[in-house]
Amino acid sequence: MDLHCQNSIKFRVRYSETDQMGYCYYGNYAAFLEMGRVECLRMIGIVYSELEQMGILLPVKSLEINYLLPAKYDNLLTLTTQLVKLNNASLEFHYEIWNESNVKITEAKTTLVFVSTPQLKPMRTPGWIVEKLKVYEIIER
Amino acid sequence: MDLHCQNSIKFRVRYSETDQMGYCYYGNYAAFLEMGRVECLRMIGIVYSELEQMGILLPVKSLEINYLLPAKYDNLLTLTTQLVKLNNASLEFHYEIWNESNVKITEAKTTLVFVSTPQLKPMRTPGWIVEKLKVYEIIER
Amino acid sequence: MDLHCQNSIKFRVRYSETDQMGYCYYGNYAAFLEMGRVECLRMIGIVYSELEQMGILLPVKSLEINYLLPAKYDNLLTLTTQLVKLNNASLEFHYEIWNESNVKITEAKTTLVFVSTPQLKPMRTPGWIVEKLKVYEIIER
Amino acid sequence: MDLHCQNSIKFRVRYSETDQMGYCYYGNYAAFLEMGRVECLRMIGIVYSELEQMGILLPVKSLEINYLLPAKYDNLLTLTTQLVKLNNASLEFHYEIWNESNVKITEAKTTLVFVSTPQLKPMRTPGWIVEKLKVYEIIER
Repeated sequence: MDLHCQNSIKFRVRYSETDQMGYCYYGNYAAFLEMGRVECLRMIGIVYSELEQMGILLPVKSLEINYLLPAKYDNLLTLTTQLVKLNNASLEFHYEIWNESNVKITEAKTTLVFVSTPQLKPMRTPGWIVEKLKVYEIIER
Repeated sequence: MDLHCQNSIKFRVRYSETDQMGYCYYGNYAAFLEMGRVECLRMIGIVYSELEQMGILLPVKSLEINYLLPAKYDNLLTLTTQLVKLNNASLEFHYEIWNESNVKITEAKTTLVFVSTPQLKPMRTPGWIVEKLKVYEIIER
Repeated sequence: MDLHCQNSIKFRVRYSETDQMGYCYYGNYAAFLEMGRVECLRMIGIVYSELEQMGILLPVKSLEINYLLPAKYDNLLTLTTQLVKLNNASLEFHYEIWNESNVKITEAKTTLVFVSTPQLKPMRTPGWIVEKLKVYEIIER
Repeated sequence: MDLHCQNSIKFRVRYSETDQMGYCYYGNYAAFLEMGRVECLRMIGIVYSELEQMGILLPVKSLEINYLLPAKYDNLLTLTTQLVKLNNASLEFHYEIWNESNVKITEAKTTLVFVSTPQLKPMRTPGWIVEKLKVYEIIER
């Protein structure tokens, strides 16, 4: 069995996100990826804003992104986000962005780590999160 | 006597701040104004990051901005910021942005209010801030 | 008769749009307003991206905004945009943002002007736009 | 001989660049890297805005970034940018960001490609750019 922890969102490129090249600025994709993983977590019952209220933060440790084709103003994009790995202390997400012609325009990967407030210290993945994700067979031992 | 509480900073328009019109996007000026007033406050001995550590926030209550001429990528801009009014609970700043040809391209105004953390309640202007600003004759009774 | 040229959109505050105060940063509202007026124009048959392809730009001339209450991360906001005035050379929009408790948190106003590319010269409101807007009785003589 | 094509810039984290975690938002680093490589290119006599006027764009093809430690509001950061490779059609830059305590907080890499306007087609590295960079021994055959 291969149960994927995956979701998909749609959004339009805003005018504020373009640059003078007429492309969606390369730095704005990080915010798109964030929207994708927040909705992916919400789907499995983890509301990120509630996580922060419990004193758990999820800062990004690493980002890799390949810009295959540009996105332009007002383009309606589809972002698929997959939670691919969970281990002792981090989460790994993979992303793909597709345009209206069903062409893949971006591939990306992020690793996030668990940090506890207010000291901002690294922490182990909370047990209840491991529990919620057991069904997806993404847990690395 | 007319002692102005005023300062000036210079900065270049970043590529990320342009839009596909080739203009500096109109929403990015708010961040410029913030830089200007932070340096204006630093000049008179108020370090905004220390203010927050004391539990005092200064959110913006209102913003008015006139875009007289566009700014373009890599333009070296000069922003003058003047603290023009201090009263019981708020501060008012006026701003002007000038381009490299000494032409004024933007005029703006912001009102900021004092708020105390963690309840985020409005508060009166702290006495020590009134004290620091006495010399400038901007205090409104 | 009083036919309003008005529309309404909903969107969530992104994590990238928060600041360390925990508020939606005051500079990000300009991008929200842009989304609102683009959809308002689309509703009446003016697609802004097509306008640019015809060589017509609509830069913002002035912005006024009152921040009545803060918006926070993940808040679902409703923005109503009304085109209130059209004259020889400019458009005026009024905006209101409401939170999930139906409380108004922001009021804003922008004036936009017609500019022709590539010389970026001010131009008169195109006749076909006046035509499209006749039904709304917002035309100023 | 080992002549490096490298430069260094300093800048402060703006309030607009923070997020509610109190960190500089991970998406804003892309704009920092852009500032670094623009100044690196300027140092060797390539003014990016002039490049665009000649009809040559340099969009980012890939970005990799490791966030070793967070940057906070008002931190004075030092970014070193090194042009490490030039080949037939692309440029590769490496970056490091250091904080005021001389601790490295970020490592990054970008690949950029040459594109010609207005068709936005990939193009070979212009000869005069190869010429300017010959002295640095970064040209890959």
